[in-house]
Amino acid sequence: MARMAKVVELPSITKLNKIQGKIAAQLIQALRQAVQNGDLQAGDPLPSSRELAMTLSVSRGTIIEVYDQLLAEGVLEARARQGTFVSDNLARSKRQQTQKWTNTHATQIQLTPAAQAYAEVLKEFKPLPHLPFAVSVPVGRTQPNDIWRKFGNRYRARGVAAPSGYDDPQGVFSLRVAIADYVRRSRSVHCEAEQIVITSGIQQALYICSQILFKAQDQVWVEDPAYRGTTALLENSIQPLHIVRVPVDEEGIQVDTGINLAPNARAAFVTPSHQYPIGMPMSLARRTALLAWAKQQSAWIIEDDYDSELRYSGQPFPALQGLAPEQVIYLGTFSKVLFPSLRLGYAVLPKALVSPFCGLRVLIDRHPPSADQHVLAAFIQEGYLERHIRRIRNVYAENRRYLIGMIERYIPKHLGYLQAGDQGMHMVLWLADYMDDREIAQAALDAGIAIKAVSPTFSLERKRSGLVLGLGDFDQDQIKIAIQTVAIILKSHAKPNRIERS
Amino acid sequence: MARMAKVVELPSITKLNKIQGKIAAQLIQALRQAVQNGDLQAGDPLPSSRELAMTLSVSRGTIIEVYDQLLAEGVLEARARQGTFVSDNLARSKRQQTQKWTNTHATQIQLTPAAQAYAEVLKEFKPLPHLPFAVSVPVGRTQPNDIWRKFGNRYRARGVAAPSGYDDPQGVFSLRVAIADYVRRSRSVHCEAEQIVITSGIQQALYICSQILFKAQDQVWVEDPAYRGTTALLENSIQPLHIVRVPVDEEGIQVDTGINLAPNARAAFVTPSHQYPIGMPMSLARRTALLAWAKQQSAWIIEDDYDSELRYSGQPFPALQGLAPEQVIYLGTFSKVLFPSLRLGYAVLPKALVSPFCGLRVLIDRHPPSADQHVLAAFIQEGYLERHIRRIRNVYAENRRYLIGMIERYIPKHLGYLQAGDQGMHMVLWLADYMDDREIAQAALDAGIAIKAVSPTFSLERKRSGLVLGLGDFDQDQIKIAIQTVAIILKSHAKPNRIERS
Repeated sequence: MARMAKVVELPSITKLNKIQGKIAAQLIQALRQAVQNGDLQAGDPLPSSRELAMTLSVSRGTIIEVYDQLLAEGVLEARARQGTFVSDNLARSKRQQTQKWTNTHATQIQLTPAAQAYAEVLKEFKPLPHLPFAVSVPVGRTQPNDIWRKFGNRYRARGVAAPSGYDDPQGVFSLRVAIADYVRRSRSVHCEAEQIVITSGIQQALYICSQILFKAQDQVWVEDPAYRGTTALLENSIQPLHIVRVPVDEEGIQVDTGINLAPNARAAFVTPSHQYPIGMPMSLARRTALLAWAKQQSAWIIEDDYDSELRYSGQPFPALQGLAPEQVIYLGTFSKVLFPSLRLGYAVLPKALVSPFCGLRVLIDRHPPSADQHVLAAFIQEGYLERHIRRIRNVYAENRRYLIGMIERYIPKHLGYLQAGDQGMHMVLWLADYMDDREIAQAALDAGIAIKAVSPTFSLERKRSGLVLGLGDFDQDQIKIAIQTVAIILKSHAKPNRIERS
Repeated sequence: MARMAKVVELPSITKLNKIQGKIAAQLIQALRQAVQNGDLQAGDPLPSSRELAMTLSVSRGTIIEVYDQLLAEGVLEARARQGTFVSDNLARSKRQQTQKWTNTHATQIQLTPAAQAYAEVLKEFKPLPHLPFAVSVPVGRTQPNDIWRKFGNRYRARGVAAPSGYDDPQGVFSLRVAIADYVRRSRSVHCEAEQIVITSGIQQALYICSQILFKAQDQVWVEDPAYRGTTALLENSIQPLHIVRVPVDEEGIQVDTGINLAPNARAAFVTPSHQYPIGMPMSLARRTALLAWAKQQSAWIIEDDYDSELRYSGQPFPALQGLAPEQVIYLGTFSKVLFPSLRLGYAVLPKALVSPFCGLRVLIDRHPPSADQHVLAAFIQEGYLERHIRRIRNVYAENRRYLIGMIERYIPKHLGYLQAGDQGMHMVLWLADYMDDREIAQAALDAGIAIKAVSPTFSLERKRSGLVLGLGDFDQDQIKIAIQTVAIILKSHAKPNRIERS
């Protein structure tokens, strides 16, 4: 108990209405408010779940549910041997403290360089709280509808989605059939179910590709800028690779530059439908040039097609894969069109790669969990996925227009320039290059706004400053206030002589 | 359609009783029978789901469900560009054909040595059909009860297990709290929730350990014999390691031999509670010696505690971890006590390893799917896991006694010697060393019996012949017939002058 002596009082929490029920929801709300009001400050310790349960005479399970929710939201954070605290993210000044336990409790065994590098990587992938402008948060009208839940209940209760033994490393057959139908129809991907491997999102497919496609010292083209999940894993590959960052312009990857830099590269990692993070599709000329180079060099193309379904004007571009199915590894995910915590995606592979890919996957995690695969198979086969995509496309289009309007209204042009594109779940607000976007993103996070800096997606030489804003079905007032707050933060980081009077 | 011209007639299938309903179940049964009767032969092609649906006037979804089930059972198999076939596993003579498409459709791009090696690995991890004596198949009374399903429905419907955004790479907090409570209580593991990482079974934890703990050319102790999931990944590590196989005797790993062979090894992979596959626990003397060596060398101990909960006489041994929490990486799984297709396990890590471990996990798959983590957290917290374990322990004990009786009755001692142990979900039937256990396991599979050879778990020098028999709640008659069939197969593989007259 001694270590909890400093536990704070929870002033607003005694007003629980037990008759009304939903104790957990009431408590979550009360704690959120206490943090917002400043009754609870960043770094304040909370009572243990057991203590709080006793104090309030509610079950410990309720308190754990409450803490869990607030941990997920980033309001609270858990620290080893210390307990649960109000998140330090909310006040930057205290942040140095959060790493303490790792150091004070270090073992006598020295960590390998790889282990140290991975510990650094982790810091970059801290999940954002479910607040504007986090990407791919299934809130409001973008949540899967009731059918998803009902299918889950139905298929888990009996039949193929009920608890079972070890399953196919490639993924369940019915889901592969459903995905093959879907990508053939919607993405012009040329494939059969036997070429599809169900993965835990695109990240797992990228990881496995990085392990099976290359020999030590191979050269690999990567767009500049690119998704940090791609560059981080190539940079930290235990087998050393030469990562050749190839600049991107308004047509996409500059194939000529790539050929000048590394004509014999073994592969190119690209995002042809919707360049990440900038947002435009790859032009037809570049597609042709890229494929011609890849054919001549017998190089692989890894096509990351993470959110092509969400195009707001006209049809999505067909996938590169359809033009060279023997050389293109096509990667898709349900994180964007359904929800990220499902952890299901797929790789469409040239046939010779299916066994190597599944062979490593077996050693990594045996196979994906089975039940949700069956549920998703039925959801797709019966047409609900495409219906859901049509619905969320409209929602995102609407939110996109609103967000663009708010940015135009509140963020002066000399501070931020919006590149909206006509596709996807995010936009980039470019900043003046003297501004430190990571510092600004952190200041935003401290103010309760989930935003990402764009600079880590660039190589050092081509680094630009900007903010990645995700479109979610958040409350319009919440979005408006968030943009107003971002404007204030930007002004406070701008050079004094450039600030407009307002 | 041309490629389907040879599709077989399905004689027994036209008798569907559509009024009775459960069309899928009827079809599954009819197809299984057709295979058993010999109406359908190994290698016979089946109609496409679309065709069969039209022929029988049922929905295509029904046919896909049927094929899916029979694919999972190993009755059917899917081949690229060709369709669905009666499994070749059922007749060994045709087996060479199954690999054909991989070769005929090879791309012009040469595969790396790593890719080729992983393709070989895959062959060893083909899931067994859900038949006796597959390990860890949740059939009969070993299935999770209705509470599991109800919790799933309840927690998915609202609250924390509903669809959500990107989540904690370490796993959801409430599940880590529940597991910490559980392993402290039941396994004397010394830990807090902050040291626990939720993994996709033990395999993922082994994989991540193999990637973060070592530098190239490090020596690593591995038991001989050992779980093939451990040796396969160390042998195929892209970063080359020296795998030092340390023999196991009736007390467990021979620590002295290990010290003679490789005193400076960086780690030891061990199964102290229930040596895999032999089945005995590590003696106290060996535990002490192993820990003393590890402390002196600052070596890691990776403690794979895959099924310690199922001990039939007395209490399970406490985990090694409790004696040296700063050096032991403790691995547990729900594959054995709940079901494998859940794909949830956990690693209890020395604190310094939590960030490196999660850093690589983020690059591999971001985080485990969230919903089942919340369901499982509630299931454990409310006491249902321990109740379930008590129940299945009784079921497995009963089945174990029955299986031992059948083996004693039908398998002559000179052909097979049973090592039953008093723990776990499998037993080893040792064979005379001149017998090829892999050939026998294949013959058993051809006869509809799911059995594994023990020889791949040994190093070449110490190779022994035997069969791994899993305990499942299969029908007693099914078990009896399977043992009788195994006896016949063993006799047919025995040297003629040793066969008893019977």
